[in-house]
Amino acid sequence: MGSVMLGYVTDFFTYETTKSVVVKSWSVGIINRLVQLLIIIYFVGWVFIHEKAYQVTDTGIESSVMTKVKGFGYHNDRVMDVADYVYPPQGADIFCIMTKLIVTENQFQGKCAEFGERFSCTTDKDCHKHFGSVLTNADTPPLFLSYKPGVITGVCIQTSNDTLNGRCEIEGWCPAENDQVEIQPMLDVNNFTIFIKNSIRFPLFNVTRGNFPTTMTATEIKRCTYHPEKHPFCPIFRVGDVLNYTGQSVDTLASQGGEIGINIEWKCNLDLNIDYCVPKYSFTRLDAPFAKNAISKGYNFRSFAKYFKTENGTDFRTLHKAFAIRFDVMVTGNAGKFNTIPTLINLVAAFTSVGLGTVLCDIILLNFLKGAAQYKAKKFEEVSEAQIEASIAQSPGSQLSLKPCIKSSYDSGA
Amino acid sequence: MGSVMLGYVTDFFTYETTKSVVVKSWSVGIINRLVQLLIIIYFVGWVFIHEKAYQVTDTGIESSVMTKVKGFGYHNDRVMDVADYVYPPQGADIFCIMTKLIVTENQFQGKCAEFGERFSCTTDKDCHKHFGSVLTNADTPPLFLSYKPGVITGVCIQTSNDTLNGRCEIEGWCPAENDQVEIQPMLDVNNFTIFIKNSIRFPLFNVTRGNFPTTMTATEIKRCTYHPEKHPFCPIFRVGDVLNYTGQSVDTLASQGGEIGINIEWKCNLDLNIDYCVPKYSFTRLDAPFAKNAISKGYNFRSFAKYFKTENGTDFRTLHKAFAIRFDVMVTGNAGKFNTIPTLINLVAAFTSVGLGTVLCDIILLNFLKGAAQYKAKKFEEVSEAQIEASIAQSPGSQLSLKPCIKSSYDSGA
Amino acid sequence: MGSVMLGYVTDFFTYETTKSVVVKSWSVGIINRLVQLLIIIYFVGWVFIHEKAYQVTDTGIESSVMTKVKGFGYHNDRVMDVADYVYPPQGADIFCIMTKLIVTENQFQGKCAEFGERFSCTTDKDCHKHFGSVLTNADTPPLFLSYKPGVITGVCIQTSNDTLNGRCEIEGWCPAENDQVEIQPMLDVNNFTIFIKNSIRFPLFNVTRGNFPTTMTATEIKRCTYHPEKHPFCPIFRVGDVLNYTGQSVDTLASQGGEIGINIEWKCNLDLNIDYCVPKYSFTRLDAPFAKNAISKGYNFRSFAKYFKTENGTDFRTLHKAFAIRFDVMVTGNAGKFNTIPTLINLVAAFTSVGLGTVLCDIILLNFLKGAAQYKAKKFEEVSEAQIEASIAQSPGSQLSLKPCIKSSYDSGA
Repeated sequence: MGSVMLGYVTDFFTYETTKSVVVKSWSVGIINRLVQLLIIIYFVGWVFIHEKAYQVTDTGIESSVMTKVKGFGYHNDRVMDVADYVYPPQGADIFCIMTKLIVTENQFQGKCAEFGERFSCTTDKDCHKHFGSVLTNADTPPLFLSYKPGVITGVCIQTSNDTLNGRCEIEGWCPAENDQVEIQPMLDVNNFTIFIKNSIRFPLFNVTRGNFPTTMTATEIKRCTYHPEKHPFCPIFRVGDVLNYTGQSVDTLASQGGEIGINIEWKCNLDLNIDYCVPKYSFTRLDAPFAKNAISKGYNFRSFAKYFKTENGTDFRTLHKAFAIRFDVMVTGNAGKFNTIPTLINLVAAFTSVGLGTVLCDIILLNFLKGAAQYKAKKFEEVSEAQIEASIAQSPGSQLSLKPCIKSSYDSGA
Repeated sequence: MGSVMLGYVTDFFTYETTKSVVVKSWSVGIINRLVQLLIIIYFVGWVFIHEKAYQVTDTGIESSVMTKVKGFGYHNDRVMDVADYVYPPQGADIFCIMTKLIVTENQFQGKCAEFGERFSCTTDKDCHKHFGSVLTNADTPPLFLSYKPGVITGVCIQTSNDTLNGRCEIEGWCPAENDQVEIQPMLDVNNFTIFIKNSIRFPLFNVTRGNFPTTMTATEIKRCTYHPEKHPFCPIFRVGDVLNYTGQSVDTLASQGGEIGINIEWKCNLDLNIDYCVPKYSFTRLDAPFAKNAISKGYNFRSFAKYFKTENGTDFRTLHKAFAIRFDVMVTGNAGKFNTIPTLINLVAAFTSVGLGTVLCDIILLNFLKGAAQYKAKKFEEVSEAQIEASIAQSPGSQLSLKPCIKSSYDSGA
Repeated sequence: MGSVMLGYVTDFFTYETTKSVVVKSWSVGIINRLVQLLIIIYFVGWVFIHEKAYQVTDTGIESSVMTKVKGFGYHNDRVMDVADYVYPPQGADIFCIMTKLIVTENQFQGKCAEFGERFSCTTDKDCHKHFGSVLTNADTPPLFLSYKPGVITGVCIQTSNDTLNGRCEIEGWCPAENDQVEIQPMLDVNNFTIFIKNSIRFPLFNVTRGNFPTTMTATEIKRCTYHPEKHPFCPIFRVGDVLNYTGQSVDTLASQGGEIGINIEWKCNLDLNIDYCVPKYSFTRLDAPFAKNAISKGYNFRSFAKYFKTENGTDFRTLHKAFAIRFDVMVTGNAGKFNTIPTLINLVAAFTSVGLGTVLCDIILLNFLKGAAQYKAKKFEEVSEAQIEASIAQSPGSQLSLKPCIKSSYDSGA
């Protein structure tokens, strides 16, 4: 029994290696090495050096953005400061600089004439077509984006200075807004500055970075302005510059409003010194995909009101239709660091790929080379069922000088 | 010396290929091809076609959302417009439509009786249990979510119309809020519409898309309403429809508040025409995971106040406890595009996997087939240490007709 | 013709397996098995068990955060409630608790003396250096972060109580803000509590989770306070605790402001029971990367104003410079679930890697072992062009007893 056990152990600790045919042929040899060289160059150059396939990447970035706008502008003969034109005020990643305000003062709840040619009428009947919600399927459905300041009552009011045409009556905040007025936008926005403080963290590697170097002193920061080449890490951005980088004119944007994206991109190779992990800024006009649609050009929001009370307690409000430049500070990024798993998987892929070079060489060797048949005969050793049966019919095992080896068949594939 | 060098060079430019045994057996042959076929089908069908393993995907999407609500509603006998019920007003990705307001007017700083049965008292002592912060470990700890409008002073005030029971006195904004009133919510919210403008960018591929086609005219957009089948790309959503898609009733939501998620999903295959890169909308109730907890049903925020000044400069405020439907527009997505690295790695995996078919066939061939021992003898050529030693004892190299090849041993594994 | 076809079919259904040399040597055998064992342990232990390489991960998490602050504080002899100190009020993921307010009441549009030593003057000329925007390159450029309340007119006003030195005149909201006053911050913030409701969804697996268990009753939630060990899933956080976890003192933060990150991390293994998919909270000071820069310590925003109207309709405002603790609730996470593609690719990598063990063993066998030359002779069968030519010169195919097999050469590499 012991010797049988020993036999199994002996069989287990054997080493199995493929039997190879070495072809001493210049032509195939050179092709073989060339193909291997190309594959190695591809893997080393592209996969490992360029695409950094030996790294694991963290794309789930944690980011916090703090913004602060500075500057003064004149609008409607008033000096506007940050508290007047920035909304929301707390310095979030999305903020609006209001550049044009259509102000409707002293609105009280009540009934009054609607504003605009579209709501002209001579009899009450003319106003009935304006009934209902935006979803009514009337002949001339009310358009979604045309603002109505209140609920149509169905009455036509004759306004004193316009005897022929009346206006439909509405119920709501009165007087109705007139947004057809021509107002000069606050072009001073050009000289406003935006200070952006962005701190990020790559949770996978527990690396924290800020968007300006710790070596920058307060004075340096206060005096600089961002410039792609000269001051790429200065966190202070002139609005005029930003609009310029996106190729937009301040005049159009200030009067119609618009959405500007300030993208902060972090691409960090944490195998290098952490000081190379720096932000890269880029600027885009976010509503660009909608440029071809006539709808919703620019950016404005009417839903901005200040509420007051009269002495006797009645509420009234000042409605602002604000045309604003909205800035979205968007932070994207990823960090890569050496990790054994992708390295190993790619190395194995590389090694196996080098082996795939033999496929090409075998095709050449066994088909196109002089003496292909001879090479084939050398490479392939044929066993047919007939032969095997014949050898079994004789004394099994006698024909073959080698003792049939007992092996776990799993090994043969490993 | 030159000839030695030449020898090395000659040895380098050799081609090494594995020696194979070709088994001409129908049974194993058919099994072999079948296994290979299955593996190929799996890789082509599942890995490459279904899972698009040949693509690199960009999940770090850059997104900007602009929203605009339209509609009128009646609440507390007032006409409410967008400026009254949408907060925050600037059209961000998260916005609330306030559907029920409990208004406490004319609050001044001072002392007054607390509201609610819980704060009833007969002597000052009864009020002392309400002292302290929410963290006090009293016998009946004050519950976190029960709102107190001010700081308990510890005095019990006898209110005129309630002689038996007094109320504990508080210091803060007075009078205290009574949030037990029954108020009819603004059900008109059902007919409000939300316009969503979403532009995204895949930074890896520098592809920008908007959520409605550039071929859509302004009029088309203004007149449409989103419908999953009829108008899947219309960017205007009726609130009633949205609530419907999430299976919520407008009555409950409008009176208790709630959080609705509008998900915009972008799954783009950039190997196809860019026009197929379109958004897919889905709607969920976000507080659904908390439905089983009795706590914090709905959505409300009390921290909404309007501040006023009396003639002599004293501040007072109007407190709003707002029940609101909060909409979170969430944009997720990824884009895939052909890339050589994943393609190559998966191709190598595929090729190697096809090779793994031999493992199975070897098991069959060497164990279960008639003549397995003969096949084994053909496949394995055994060399034992005894043999090697014997051959060394004779004249080394003479037994073997082939010249021992000098090769860099690394090659043997490549 | 039929027999030729049959020949091709017969040739196709052959099975090709590599011819192997089995070396019965204890030394190489043991090394071989050891290397294989190490590779298997690495793959099973590290790649599969530790790194879960058999899973596909979803990192594109959808998250919705709702927050609610509770507590009362005294500031400037007033009781402050949530409506007074939380901004923005709607309970978003980013909110500020204002801990110190510098209030400038009754500001009207007009002209007045600027505040601060820096703007002292004796003649109008002294004020001209303050002209212009923040971008002027004067000798002493105006610093970005020094706030100016209005536009410098260039006039020097003699203030009555300061006969020697006047102050430069500004145009804007008057009187100018004096932010040098010493104000006691609201330290009661320590006892405030924050309730966080976070629901997430992994779109890839369509799994939704909330940040507190559904088995938690309302009363349990209301009475608990988060503690890393005792109550890790309680959604109520005491501000003092949070500041403590980040190692910050409430005194500094309350008087200077600061940014605190509350990170909710979801790492879910969806192959396990869903109940193990729970959040993990961590707390960081977000402006930590900027601690070394002298600039912008803390967090404050001046752009917070309340607007009023006098009886005759003139606008005036109360400006607040707010020092606040800003909380950013950041949700990150990923979920993993078994998937065939990564499993298969990694399995193939594992199998192939086990095979790579032969590289090492071949080096040992063919170079360092006694009888290396004999092993080489056994492993490599050499064919030189000379031999092939010689065999062609004789009768082709006669020397070799086996019929040259016609095979698609592609197979030889598969």
